[in-house]
Amino acid sequence: MSFTIAVVGPSDATVEQLTAAEEVGRLLAAAGHTVVTGGLGGVMQAASRGAAIGDGLVIGILPGADRGEANPFVSVAIATGLGELRNGLVVRCADAVIAVGAGWGTLSEVALAMKAGKPVVLLDTGDLPAGPVVATSSRQAVDLAVGLAAG
Amino acid sequence: MSFTIAVVGPSDATVEQLTAAEEVGRLLAAAGHTVVTGGLGGVMQAASRGAAIGDGLVIGILPGADRGEANPFVSVAIATGLGELRNGLVVRCADAVIAVGAGWGTLSEVALAMKAGKPVVLLDTGDLPAGPVVATSSRQAVDLAVGLAAG
Amino acid sequence: MSFTIAVVGPSDATVEQLTAAEEVGRLLAAAGHTVVTGGLGGVMQAASRGAAIGDGLVIGILPGADRGEANPFVSVAIATGLGELRNGLVVRCADAVIAVGAGWGTLSEVALAMKAGKPVVLLDTGDLPAGPVVATSSRQAVDLAVGLAAG
Amino acid sequence: MSFTIAVVGPSDATVEQLTAAEEVGRLLAAAGHTVVTGGLGGVMQAASRGAAIGDGLVIGILPGADRGEANPFVSVAIATGLGELRNGLVVRCADAVIAVGAGWGTLSEVALAMKAGKPVVLLDTGDLPAGPVVATSSRQAVDLAVGLAAG
Repeated sequence: MSFTIAVVGPSDATVEQLTAAEEVGRLLAAAGHTVVTGGLGGVMQAASRGAAIGDGLVIGILPGADRGEANPFVSVAIATGLGELRNGLVVRCADAVIAVGAGWGTLSEVALAMKAGKPVVLLDTGDLPAGPVVATSSRQAVDLAVGLAAG
Repeated sequence: MSFTIAVVGPSDATVEQLTAAEEVGRLLAAAGHTVVTGGLGGVMQAASRGAAIGDGLVIGILPGADRGEANPFVSVAIATGLGELRNGLVVRCADAVIAVGAGWGTLSEVALAMKAGKPVVLLDTGDLPAGPVVATSSRQAVDLAVGLAAG
Repeated sequence: MSFTIAVVGPSDATVEQLTAAEEVGRLLAAAGHTVVTGGLGGVMQAASRGAAIGDGLVIGILPGADRGEANPFVSVAIATGLGELRNGLVVRCADAVIAVGAGWGTLSEVALAMKAGKPVVLLDTGDLPAGPVVATSSRQAVDLAVGLAAG
Repeated sequence: MSFTIAVVGPSDATVEQLTAAEEVGRLLAAAGHTVVTGGLGGVMQAASRGAAIGDGLVIGILPGADRGEANPFVSVAIATGLGELRNGLVVRCADAVIAVGAGWGTLSEVALAMKAGKPVVLLDTGDLPAGPVVATSSRQAVDLAVGLAAG
């Protein structure tokens, strides 16, 4: 049985993450599965490259409206013009999600997949990126949010 | 100066979270800020209620195509029909985001806001929901993802 | 009973269309209805201005991700970052659509509203803009499309 | 040079339109072009069938969130969950658009393509579907829209 598996991860990745993503793409293609990614560089390109080497189908769901943004290993580029909202489409296209590494874009895909009840597997996600501010009361939360909004 | 602040959080929330969200809404409205939420129940409704009591403007960006889904404290309901992709619109509409509690939908909003460079403040987020599976090798990640996709 | 009525039309409009759109906005607000538009200039701004003068609520669903693009008569600006796909959201937000003038963006809103089964009223639409190429055979259609795609 | 050409048209089509759409798909595939459609039946399926017979790549951009909705000749199904807003994605994915037949969904694609400056070729579009109501004054437009909104 053949599935469509999303491989998600940051553009800015470590060598280990790139190596892992390429191997994930290669293994998926070897088993006859389709790979879907966000279509850009880093982990997305490495997974695409692995799948392309394995002669697999690679769908790239791009944030911009220009197919030319796709990495060269994408076989079908979908130029959405939706910006980061395309992360939700990557997830909707997939039967399961493999996250290699972690950035905020990647985490949004993990969260949207979990919300949609789709299986998610994390690989080498390392530490979470430096995060949001934590408040301990409603008033502090409002003061912080308004202060930060004001720049 | 008046801002639009998103208050995000789960439909299924604790009493403490609902109390906090209502107070956040009330404080924001009292200071003249607009509140934007996902328009449904739980934290979304509590924040809307607080803002409405304070005579504030409450925008509800709904996942469905029917404005009737909005909680009764929403002053302007936007029925998107985008499903969870509307989470990205909630974030785009906001100058800053306050998350009260945490669920996967809420975390997708936090992640999308961080990705977009918008300030995020966390309040009473508690433990993360039970999470994705962790793999320690590419092969294990692929085996887990395909196995889970197969149900 | 109060409704949300979309007033759609081109940025580049005639004086008659601008006058009509402003009057439409004014009449809708006077009757207690909410006006929703695409939030930009021309017919969108004229309808917003009419409604604002009548103290009505004006929702502007913007194509870009920056609320600052909204015309000054919009009371609630939703910055979607969806480009022309936001036309579908304008229609989804409305109980009925009034088109003043016609351009391709406006016609997409008319068509999406008709497809969604929402009432559409046309006012001063004049001639359709210069249009698509017409083919009389499958081969000619393909030759024309490929030739035009090649620029 | 290879292009991606959208073939758009109604689910409910005449025999002549289905025959034409299948031939359009066959000719596009024979020349090495990719066909993108809305992924469902009628003209969409006929064009997909023609392209598939010609061993071409067929992308189906579906309105729903379930890939299973795609007609059997789609090689890559993108399940968007965007409803009719996916019409804009079909257009964004294409270098040119061929419309076979005409319905309101099809017309929205034609209008969005023209708005985006993409070439559009019409084939056997026949008469426009029964249309919107025409008003001759602002007051009449408002009365009609509100009356129709009230059902």
